[in-house]
Amino acid sequence: MTGADRGDQPGAASVRQRLWGAQRAAIEGALHTLDPDLAALITDVVYETVLARPGLDLKTRELLAVTALIGVGGERELKTHLRGALRCGATVGELKEVIIQAAMFVGFPKALAAMRALRGLEPPPAPDAAEVG
Amino acid sequence: MTGADRGDQPGAASVRQRLWGAQRAAIEGALHTLDPDLAALITDVVYETVLARPGLDLKTRELLAVTALIGVGGERELKTHLRGALRCGATVGELKEVIIQAAMFVGFPKALAAMRALRGLEPPPAPDAAEVG
Amino acid sequence: MTGADRGDQPGAASVRQRLWGAQRAAIEGALHTLDPDLAALITDVVYETVLARPGLDLKTRELLAVTALIGVGGERELKTHLRGALRCGATVGELKEVIIQAAMFVGFPKALAAMRALRGLEPPPAPDAAEVG
Amino acid sequence: MTGADRGDQPGAASVRQRLWGAQRAAIEGALHTLDPDLAALITDVVYETVLARPGLDLKTRELLAVTALIGVGGERELKTHLRGALRCGATVGELKEVIIQAAMFVGFPKALAAMRALRGLEPPPAPDAAEVG
Amino acid sequence: MTGADRGDQPGAASVRQRLWGAQRAAIEGALHTLDPDLAALITDVVYETVLARPGLDLKTRELLAVTALIGVGGERELKTHLRGALRCGATVGELKEVIIQAAMFVGFPKALAAMRALRGLEPPPAPDAAEVG
Amino acid sequence: MTGADRGDQPGAASVRQRLWGAQRAAIEGALHTLDPDLAALITDVVYETVLARPGLDLKTRELLAVTALIGVGGERELKTHLRGALRCGATVGELKEVIIQAAMFVGFPKALAAMRALRGLEPPPAPDAAEVG
Repeated sequence: MTGADRGDQPGAASVRQRLWGAQRAAIEGALHTLDPDLAALITDVVYETVLARPGLDLKTRELLAVTALIGVGGERELKTHLRGALRCGATVGELKEVIIQAAMFVGFPKALAAMRALRGLEPPPAPDAAEVG
Repeated sequence: MTGADRGDQPGAASVRQRLWGAQRAAIEGALHTLDPDLAALITDVVYETVLARPGLDLKTRELLAVTALIGVGGERELKTHLRGALRCGATVGELKEVIIQAAMFVGFPKALAAMRALRGLEPPPAPDAAEVG
Repeated sequence: MTGADRGDQPGAASVRQRLWGAQRAAIEGALHTLDPDLAALITDVVYETVLARPGLDLKTRELLAVTALIGVGGERELKTHLRGALRCGATVGELKEVIIQAAMFVGFPKALAAMRALRGLEPPPAPDAAEVG
Repeated sequence: MTGADRGDQPGAASVRQRLWGAQRAAIEGALHTLDPDLAALITDVVYETVLARPGLDLKTRELLAVTALIGVGGERELKTHLRGALRCGATVGELKEVIIQAAMFVGFPKALAAMRALRGLEPPPAPDAAEVG
Repeated sequence: MTGADRGDQPGAASVRQRLWGAQRAAIEGALHTLDPDLAALITDVVYETVLARPGLDLKTRELLAVTALIGVGGERELKTHLRGALRCGATVGELKEVIIQAAMFVGFPKALAAMRALRGLEPPPAPDAAEVG
Repeated sequence: MTGADRGDQPGAASVRQRLWGAQRAAIEGALHTLDPDLAALITDVVYETVLARPGLDLKTRELLAVTALIGVGGERELKTHLRGALRCGATVGELKEVIIQAAMFVGFPKALAAMRALRGLEPPPAPDAAEVG
C-alpha cells in the first residue's frame, strides 16, 4: 500500500529522483539526520505514496504543493517545492502565475512573500534538511 | 489593465462563462445583491484579470484554487471552485487526488472536510451568493 | 490590574454595556452556562481589561476585532463583534469597507464569507453563548 | 513500517478500537464510503502508524489532537477527537482545561467555538464520515 | 473603476504618497523589479482602489491592515504597514494597543511577535521590496 | 481571580519558576522592556492564571503549548515552550513524538519546521524577549 512496500526500486524512487535530482542521496541523508522517523514518513507517505499516485502529473502536483505552501507560510519548504516544480518542467513564468493567483485566495502579503522566495531561489547549496519538505 | 477595461465583451467574459456556465447571469446578480462593490472587485480582479491571465490553463487554475481553499477552510467557496473545476474539464478523480495530496501539506482534517464537500456536490441550486467566491 | 479588581461597577461594566446593550445580563448568563471559568476570563481579560484600555476608542477597537475575526474564520464570533461595532456607532457602510479591505490581506474567500455574515445580521435572538466572543 | 504492514491484527487495531469503541466497524465503513484511498491513508498512517507509536500514551495523544484541531477549526473533526479523548480516560474537566489554555495560544474565539463543541457532544449517532478525522 | 484608470495623478497617488512618503519612487521601483505584474496589481488594486476608498480614514485603514497582518504572520509586511500607520498619524502607543488587543483574538504568540516588530522598527533602509505589502 | 491577585509569592511564581528556571528574572526583565503592559498580561494571565490552573499537570500543558505553536508557526515562541517542556520533565523523545503527530493534523511542512526548531535548541543565551511567549 505504501511506497515502502514497493521497496527502493528505481521505479518507486522516481518521485524523489524527479524532484530532488542529483541531490537525492544528500537530501535523504540530511532528512534522516534531522529525524529518522519523520524522514521515513515523509519519504514513504508524502513522496512515494501520495505524490507518486497516478491521476495527476507530477508537475501539476508540484504547482499544487507550491499553492498549499503559500498559504501555510514558511519560506524553506516553499523553496523546496519551487525547485521541485522547476525540475518537473514548470517555468518561472508558470510559478509567477501560481503566486499571483494565490493573492486572490490567501491575500497579497503571502503572495509577496512567495514572490520574494521565487526570485531568491539560488542553485541549491550543500543539501541539508532545508532541501526537504 | 483590468478586465473592466476590456468591457463586458464575450472574450473578456470567457472566464466567468467557462466557470459559471448557464448560471452566469444569476450568479452575478446574486453577488451584486450581496455587495455591488465587492462584486465588482471579484468580477474584475479575481476572474477577469487574474484568472483570465495566460500562462496557466483554466483547469489548472481551478485545481490551484481548490487547493488554496482547502487550506483556507470554508465549504461554500470550496464548492464553488470544485464545480468550476468540473466545468473546466477536471474529473472527480482528479479532484480527489488534489484533496488527498492536500492532506500532506495542510493536514488530514482539512482534507477530510474537503472530501465531504466534493462528495456532497449537488447540481447547483438557484444561484445565490453561494455560487461565487 | 484587571477588570475584576475594579469590581462590577457601572464604570467598569461600560465595555460590556456598550457592546451588549440590553442583552448584557442574558449574554453573561449564557456565557457562564457554557463554562464559568472561560466566561470569567473573557469578561475580565478580553472585555474589561483589554477592550476597556484607553488609547483606542471602542468603535475602532470593534473594527479591529472584526478584522481579526475575518482572518480567524468562524461566523458566530464575527457576528457578535459586527453587532458590537454597530452598537458603538459604526455604520453598515464602514463595516462593508472593513470587509472589502480585508480581502486584500487575507483573500477574497474570507471577505465573501464576512460580507454574507454582515448582510445576514438579524436582531439578536434569545441570548445564548452565540452572543459572546 | 506502517500499520498496514502489521495487518488487521487485534493488536494493530488497538488504536482504532480504543478511540472508536463499538462503532469501529461502522466508522470504518463510513470512511471507506467517503473515499477508500483517503480512508486507507487515515487508517494506516494517522491511526495505526502515528497514533500507535510508543513514547506518548494515547490519552495524551488525544489531548494533543484536540489542541491541534482547536487551531485548525472545523467542529466535526474536533468532536471526533473530543470523543476519542473521553474514551481514552480523559475527563470533561481535562478537556475544558485544554480548551481554556488554547485561548492563550490561538485566541479566545477559537476557544469559545471549541467549548461549544465540547458542551454539544452527544452520544455518537449512526456512524458516518463525521466520526472520523 | 480602478486607480489605474485615474492615471498617475497626484490625487490618485495620494494613498501611496501618504503611506510611503519620500520613499515612494524607490519602493515602486523595488516592487516593479520583484515582479511587474504583481506590482501593478498591488499598486492599482490594494493601494489606489481599495485603500483609497472613502468611508474609512487612512489611519484607521492602516490600523486594520496591521491587525490583519498580525494574524497572517510575516514580519516584513507587518513592518511596512506599521510604518504606514505612523506616517498616517498613528502613535506608537496606538499601535501598541492594536497589538495587545490582537492577543485576545489570535493569541499571545502572534501578538508577541508583532510587538517585537514594532519595537524593532528602524528608519527605513534603502528601499527594496521589503517596503511594500 | 488572577495570579496578580495572589501577588508575587513563591507559590504563585511556581509556573514561571518551573518553566524559566534560573533565567526567570532576566526573562521577566526582557519582557517588561519589550512592553510592560503586554508583559503583565502574559505573566498574570497566561502563566500565573491559566497555566497555573489545576486539572492538567504542567508537563502536559507544555506539550499542548508546543502543539498549538506548531500550528501557529513562529520559531521563537515554539523554542520557548520546547525548553519549558524539557524543564518540566519532558524528554526530547516525547517532543519528537508531539511533532510527528502534529504532521497528521497540520501537515508535514509545519512539522518539519518544528523538528528543525527542536534539533536547533541550544542552551538559552542571555535572556531577552525571545525567551518569553
